[in-house]
Amino acid sequence: MKFAGTHLLIDLWGASRLDDPDHIDAALREAAVTAGATILHSHFHHFSPNGGVSGVVVLAESHISIHTWPERDFAAIDIFMCGACNPHLSLPVLQRAFGPERVVLDEQRRGRVS
Amino acid sequence: MKFAGTHLLIDLWGASRLDDPDHIDAALREAAVTAGATILHSHFHHFSPNGGVSGVVVLAESHISIHTWPERDFAAIDIFMCGACNPHLSLPVLQRAFGPERVVLDEQRRGRVS
Repeated sequence: MKFAGTHLLIDLWGASRLDDPDHIDAALREAAVTAGATILHSHFHHFSPNGGVSGVVVLAESHISIHTWPERDFAAIDIFMCGACNPHLSLPVLQRAFGPERVVLDEQRRGRVS
Repeated sequence: MKFAGTHLLIDLWGASRLDDPDHIDAALREAAVTAGATILHSHFHHFSPNGGVSGVVVLAESHISIHTWPERDFAAIDIFMCGACNPHLSLPVLQRAFGPERVVLDEQRRGRVS
């Protein structure tokens, strides 16, 4: 093994439904399962008055997190997965769930040993 | 505002106490508070048989996550904070808690608008 896991940093711009914790919870769960991950725990917090949501899904293979700024149609999502999962498979799920006009993707390899 | 938050990706090598969820929970809580953050929720999972820990602390200002591989003395930590917090203040807390021989730090600005 050359690295411990793949970490995607995904910024969504012009996105919708960012103030709906139930929708976000369902979207992140679908994103996890589609990537081949196993969900261990999830927690979502709904902020007032702006309606933003912060949430995490703890996976057997690491985690997914989201923080939303509905007033700017912006969301910052991380997908960190190790093992046989493919976090790139989560991207179409997020696109369909939030309909962003623009996606900024950064990929980091965590725990590189070479 | 030019960006939504600062995201530190911190890889610890040659680190210790990575199989102790209570110690990790306490360290991450201290790291959060020291940076000026407010803790909303935390969850830690202890894997067997390797003793690794995955955990998240959800903050009013985003999150801290950790995934440990005790068999390699390796931990991958994220600190994502928006607002007036300073996530760099968490670094000495993590150094003291885990005594890594080497720290690899990457800093990302999430939600840049310029």
